[in-house]
Amino acid sequence: MARINDNFQKLPGSYLFSEIAHRVEVYRQSQPQAKVIRMGIGDVTLPLCDAVVKAMEKATAEMGCRDTFRGYGPEQGYQFLARTILDNDFTPRGIHLDTDEIFVSDGAKSDTGNIGDILGIDNVVAVTDPVYPVYVDTNVMAGRAGNLMPNGQWSNVVYMPCLQENGFVPELPKVRVDVIYLCFPNNPTGTTLTKDQLKTFVDYARNNDALIMFDAAYEAFITENDVPHSIYEIEGAKEVAIEFRSFSKTAGFTGTRCGYTVIPKEVMAFDEKGNSIALNHLWNRRQCTKFNGTPYVVQRGAEAIYSEEGKIQVRSQVDYYMTNASIIRNGLQSVGYDVFGGVNGPYVWVKTPEGMSSWSFFDHLLKDKNIVVTPGVGFGPSGEGYVRFSALGDRDNTIEAMCRLQ
Amino acid sequence: MARINDNFQKLPGSYLFSEIAHRVEVYRQSQPQAKVIRMGIGDVTLPLCDAVVKAMEKATAEMGCRDTFRGYGPEQGYQFLARTILDNDFTPRGIHLDTDEIFVSDGAKSDTGNIGDILGIDNVVAVTDPVYPVYVDTNVMAGRAGNLMPNGQWSNVVYMPCLQENGFVPELPKVRVDVIYLCFPNNPTGTTLTKDQLKTFVDYARNNDALIMFDAAYEAFITENDVPHSIYEIEGAKEVAIEFRSFSKTAGFTGTRCGYTVIPKEVMAFDEKGNSIALNHLWNRRQCTKFNGTPYVVQRGAEAIYSEEGKIQVRSQVDYYMTNASIIRNGLQSVGYDVFGGVNGPYVWVKTPEGMSSWSFFDHLLKDKNIVVTPGVGFGPSGEGYVRFSALGDRDNTIEAMCRLQ
Repeated sequence: MARINDNFQKLPGSYLFSEIAHRVEVYRQSQPQAKVIRMGIGDVTLPLCDAVVKAMEKATAEMGCRDTFRGYGPEQGYQFLARTILDNDFTPRGIHLDTDEIFVSDGAKSDTGNIGDILGIDNVVAVTDPVYPVYVDTNVMAGRAGNLMPNGQWSNVVYMPCLQENGFVPELPKVRVDVIYLCFPNNPTGTTLTKDQLKTFVDYARNNDALIMFDAAYEAFITENDVPHSIYEIEGAKEVAIEFRSFSKTAGFTGTRCGYTVIPKEVMAFDEKGNSIALNHLWNRRQCTKFNGTPYVVQRGAEAIYSEEGKIQVRSQVDYYMTNASIIRNGLQSVGYDVFGGVNGPYVWVKTPEGMSSWSFFDHLLKDKNIVVTPGVGFGPSGEGYVRFSALGDRDNTIEAMCRLQ
Repeated sequence: MARINDNFQKLPGSYLFSEIAHRVEVYRQSQPQAKVIRMGIGDVTLPLCDAVVKAMEKATAEMGCRDTFRGYGPEQGYQFLARTILDNDFTPRGIHLDTDEIFVSDGAKSDTGNIGDILGIDNVVAVTDPVYPVYVDTNVMAGRAGNLMPNGQWSNVVYMPCLQENGFVPELPKVRVDVIYLCFPNNPTGTTLTKDQLKTFVDYARNNDALIMFDAAYEAFITENDVPHSIYEIEGAKEVAIEFRSFSKTAGFTGTRCGYTVIPKEVMAFDEKGNSIALNHLWNRRQCTKFNGTPYVVQRGAEAIYSEEGKIQVRSQVDYYMTNASIIRNGLQSVGYDVFGGVNGPYVWVKTPEGMSSWSFFDHLLKDKNIVVTPGVGFGPSGEGYVRFSALGDRDNTIEAMCRLQ
């Protein structure tokens, strides 16, 4: 008798963004004339830049020609891209890695989701709260999360609240944990850690043989000094941290799908006999067995992000979104809201007025202002009382949304 | 203390194709003038057809234009592709499916590997022997395979030998199993099942509440009647079978990455309480959580395979490879080898002469004929005494290889 993975049954039925889509649809059917502005889901709006388009067109033509056609590529990604990544994202920051420590993939969502394949199910996992739901849900599926409790927390997950009261800087876990997920610049709060703040986590991991899953998908949006672009800027991080990167927001790749994961050879975890095992090898084996590489055409597109032309064009896209973030911050502040983030990340995290719940404020903004945001509670219990505005939208819509709030 | 998934340690160190690459490299260094013909790994050689290239170029241009840019697509794939798949691959064969039973992905390797996520680890798995290594290795990683025994079998896996003696038609498992992997037309043997033979498995699954994982990646290479193109041609299969399809070999997508998985809503497995649960919902939840869709540009390329122009061009590629298969069959037969497959699939399965081992015959062909094949034993214990020739290579090389064997 074939059996399902029972852990799937523990997941709540409704996915956050499905519930949002449902409420928006119900409203639109009742008010078909309403011009609804979507500032909820963190999707980009600017097209692929010219350098990327040209590179993908060239690569497509190569794929149509017998002499330049490419079949199976390396599961880990092409050397040309790994080399370019190292030369641009790491070497200039004094971080030395080899190309076989870079694993190109179809995006950070896949990698942060699949990384659990190489880890035992008895690891104790810690997450910031609020948090990107993928970290938690994939651990639920794997059987590491325990059961969902009435307070919205999972019984075996350790939560590190990020609240206005602590400046959205998580405290170290009070119980010993094995795996810590950190995303900075943060989704959903848009806030960051300084190097010293991140160093406390690296030190914790080194002292406790713990692992850090560092999601740096929003690295390109950092504008301030002293904010680490890579966790490997912190001393000792190469022994304890896996870093996830994405071109989704940086270069508008949400529908083109490319990112990469860094696993330095020094990163270890323990087997049942207590031997330390290099995770680089395990992930390589996982990828060789369950993944067949990112499309060649897409990898050429990603490479072009780092060309002289590409860097300028992508920077201008990031600037566009960060100007949106500034417009949102100023617009909300001018009418008295408490706003956070939006300086080093494309999300603005807003405290609901007068103690309203996240969903109540969501409904108010939808029905009275025709603005869609994301209810903070959807990212975890500590997100209650907040909503997230995305700065990744269209400029005119962003400005109009702020006018509606005046 | 972070712990690894100890099941990874059970996997043998060397991956089949890495070992082949290593031996070829050692030989080439000793004989740099040798013109080595590679008929080992099943990669294609013909470029993407014109219809696909045009569609991908058009889609790339759309992605570079603000009005036509696409961000996140549906995790399940775009409707335009799912609809096209149904209208071409299923409806004409009398198989009725809905678009939400089709999950577009980056290829059958990912899907056959990841499908285990939704299944309990206590399922008993059966595989044909020889077999595509991904089915076994991913079950080893998940903890379903038990331990590797000296005879090359895994202690908890049920093997269904496919040998010359049984015409490469697996017998039903003698012990009760929960999940059966079938790949027909078969990799590596290139042989197939008739509808009646496949029906035996569907009936077994229905009578035993078992699941069939049906890998139809080589469906396009079928030339004979009475060979099922889809398992859903068999009555009752929609209740018990998941089908995997790939554009890799059909349309030269090994480096472009697109395939799809069919999970009819009737396919069920049981939870711990004995309730039957629809796997369509579980897989949808898995994909929404751990996957972010196939690149838009690639999906447009896949759609073009089904255009009038695309169908003709792709058919001519398949014919080219099947002519290669015929050349290989005839060439090997004319010098007295026992050959199988190559009529409904792009692989020719060859019995080694005089009881030689797979690896000895591999070494002989490499060193004396400068031809690289795949040792059958790499696909499982019952592959010992066979090698696989791939027909997916270049025509001139295929002819020259056969001349060398005369």
